[in-house]
Amino acid sequence: MEHSFELQKKHSGSDARAGVIRTAHGDVTTPVFMPVGSQGSVKALTPEDLRSVGARIVLCNAYHIYLRPGVDLISRFGDLHRFMAWDGPILTDSGGYQVFSLAPLRRIDDDGVVFRSHIDGSEHFFSPEKVIEIQEALGADIIMPLDHCPSHVDDPATLAEAMRRTHVWAERSVKARRRGDQALYGIIQGGLSAEMRRASAEFMMSLDFPGYAMGGLSLGEPKEVTFDILEKTLGHLPADRPRYLMGVGSPEDIFEGVARGVDMFDSALPTRTARNGSLFTAHGRHNILNAAFRDADFPVEEYCECYTCRHFTVAYLHHLFKSRELLAYRLASIHNLHFMIELMRDIRGSILNGSFADFKRDFLDGYVTTNEEVRMEQKNKWLRTRRESA
Amino acid sequence: MEHSFELQKKHSGSDARAGVIRTAHGDVTTPVFMPVGSQGSVKALTPEDLRSVGARIVLCNAYHIYLRPGVDLISRFGDLHRFMAWDGPILTDSGGYQVFSLAPLRRIDDDGVVFRSHIDGSEHFFSPEKVIEIQEALGADIIMPLDHCPSHVDDPATLAEAMRRTHVWAERSVKARRRGDQALYGIIQGGLSAEMRRASAEFMMSLDFPGYAMGGLSLGEPKEVTFDILEKTLGHLPADRPRYLMGVGSPEDIFEGVARGVDMFDSALPTRTARNGSLFTAHGRHNILNAAFRDADFPVEEYCECYTCRHFTVAYLHHLFKSRELLAYRLASIHNLHFMIELMRDIRGSILNGSFADFKRDFLDGYVTTNEEVRMEQKNKWLRTRRESA
Repeated sequence: MEHSFELQKKHSGSDARAGVIRTAHGDVTTPVFMPVGSQGSVKALTPEDLRSVGARIVLCNAYHIYLRPGVDLISRFGDLHRFMAWDGPILTDSGGYQVFSLAPLRRIDDDGVVFRSHIDGSEHFFSPEKVIEIQEALGADIIMPLDHCPSHVDDPATLAEAMRRTHVWAERSVKARRRGDQALYGIIQGGLSAEMRRASAEFMMSLDFPGYAMGGLSLGEPKEVTFDILEKTLGHLPADRPRYLMGVGSPEDIFEGVARGVDMFDSALPTRTARNGSLFTAHGRHNILNAAFRDADFPVEEYCECYTCRHFTVAYLHHLFKSRELLAYRLASIHNLHFMIELMRDIRGSILNGSFADFKRDFLDGYVTTNEEVRMEQKNKWLRTRRESA
Repeated sequence: MEHSFELQKKHSGSDARAGVIRTAHGDVTTPVFMPVGSQGSVKALTPEDLRSVGARIVLCNAYHIYLRPGVDLISRFGDLHRFMAWDGPILTDSGGYQVFSLAPLRRIDDDGVVFRSHIDGSEHFFSPEKVIEIQEALGADIIMPLDHCPSHVDDPATLAEAMRRTHVWAERSVKARRRGDQALYGIIQGGLSAEMRRASAEFMMSLDFPGYAMGGLSLGEPKEVTFDILEKTLGHLPADRPRYLMGVGSPEDIFEGVARGVDMFDSALPTRTARNGSLFTAHGRHNILNAAFRDADFPVEEYCECYTCRHFTVAYLHHLFKSRELLAYRLASIHNLHFMIELMRDIRGSILNGSFADFKRDFLDGYVTTNEEVRMEQKNKWLRTRRESA
């Protein structure tokens, strides 16, 4: 079965949408959060854990897997699904972003990019054609073209050149395809200029991709700018194709993205922060290593149904983190991913029943994101409430 | 329900025994291998994982838990079972061995031992009474008295003094007990002298413990010596009490222990070696990081029913270890513990049906333990066989 997208409901008070992406490895209801397993493993979790937290699709990274263990090995095993024992849908990112952020660059021109491996310094060449070939061998359900990801602080000429090159590469990526059973999405670039983003969206639409991604956002620019660009770009895209905001994110950013019509998100944030002991709750993130949690005799979230919250107290997690026990990273990752995926399910439910705007306001009212003082106050309030209810 | 032991069968060709230890938290069939969770967590594994590998009892360490998170905290939670969410039987080691091996000692006399925490250098005092109090608060099903663990290289006078002190402490430990629902085992010391071991066994028997442990063995002395001492000591012990060989061990040592009448074993070896990429098979241990395993398209053991072998290839494990993915440590630990526990089940089965001697010989014939050259040859043979059968 090929990839398809069905738009099920559009929220009336915003651009929020609910839909379903159908793939050969199963359906993915949207909006969706995709856990990140760059190297073919969502850190510390088994496929069974991923199912238990409700994950429906996993993101892997072509750059990482190309370097290690290598594409030949994966194809000898059939595909990435079989290698990592995940039989659900997989999206592979092209690795464009990683080539430009992780790997020392040697040369870039319209042919492609010569870079050094961040693992062993060996030299490699990625062209749009090569990157399609890699992802066809990996066999993901959704694949991404090579794009040129500049930095926001680059001068306008560099940004324009990166966009032009991304467009040339997108066209060549479409032509390079041999398999018909994977969905190749287009990636829209254009930095922080609404005008360039619109031009990029229009160019990508001319190639009639089955899905559109926003690349090069949420890279440190102010959040208002991210969402402004998003708002001004997504409106131009066809309603019947999924929109994917790459590398986002946090619960608060996901609400803003959904409100502007984003269907798909991916981010290593929930698992990375989990491994640092930072756990998501409806009141914001809490650092489990804080001494206040030493004797907290309740789960991270009282009504949470994840494996971690059903079995362990905050005090036990605190002990595991303090003792650097490996189990800490897994239990925290399970909770944070479950939190994100449940949140997406609730968001989707609120879109379907028309209450998204209320749900967004209520959630963000209770969720402390930035001010550390407020965060501490909330934390203490949270502790007090939990103690009283315990 | 209190602790009891039923001897179910004695093998006719050796001193091997099959039995069952009954505790308030469930029955433990013997011979048994106990996974080690010193800090209240068997490294990288959840209680669910422990159940899935067949673990029936877990060992924790009073020294570690006393230092962190502290005994007060555990008792506020009820007990160790509840804190770590393991509802099966628990044995706590007194920490005698850890005090003498991990902690810088400050003073030791008949009163007890003053030591420094290996975590923060703080000074602490353990007396036999204190160690009973700690373990009563932790609430394990089986507890151990404080003993004086000398080094084998100490002079005879020191060894004799350590044994004398261990005896005095054992007597005081019995008197210090307040709870009647835990089984306190006696620990036999006496270094590598069969005579002293016998004297120690006789003294401990005079205190009528419900189980007897051999302490201070397998600390680097030649294996023949360990087993000789074992043979000469266990014969003196009453048949109706379980015998526990502390800190052992490897598959080969377990066979030798069982053959001499040992019922219980504990060791961090299977999980520690797992985290180093060393996996147990019927042919010996294999280092998964070996380049030969890069493209091995089969499980670690073909007929193994552990989660790891049912889902993942050696090549995937190799990739996870190379990439330092956290999942590696968990999958390898699951396999090694499953291997040990299945082995114990097979050993028990062979005792019950009278084939223990044959099973021991067949297993040890195929299991390469020491000679590296032979090990490499076996590994290559293993690879060839697996490739041919794949």
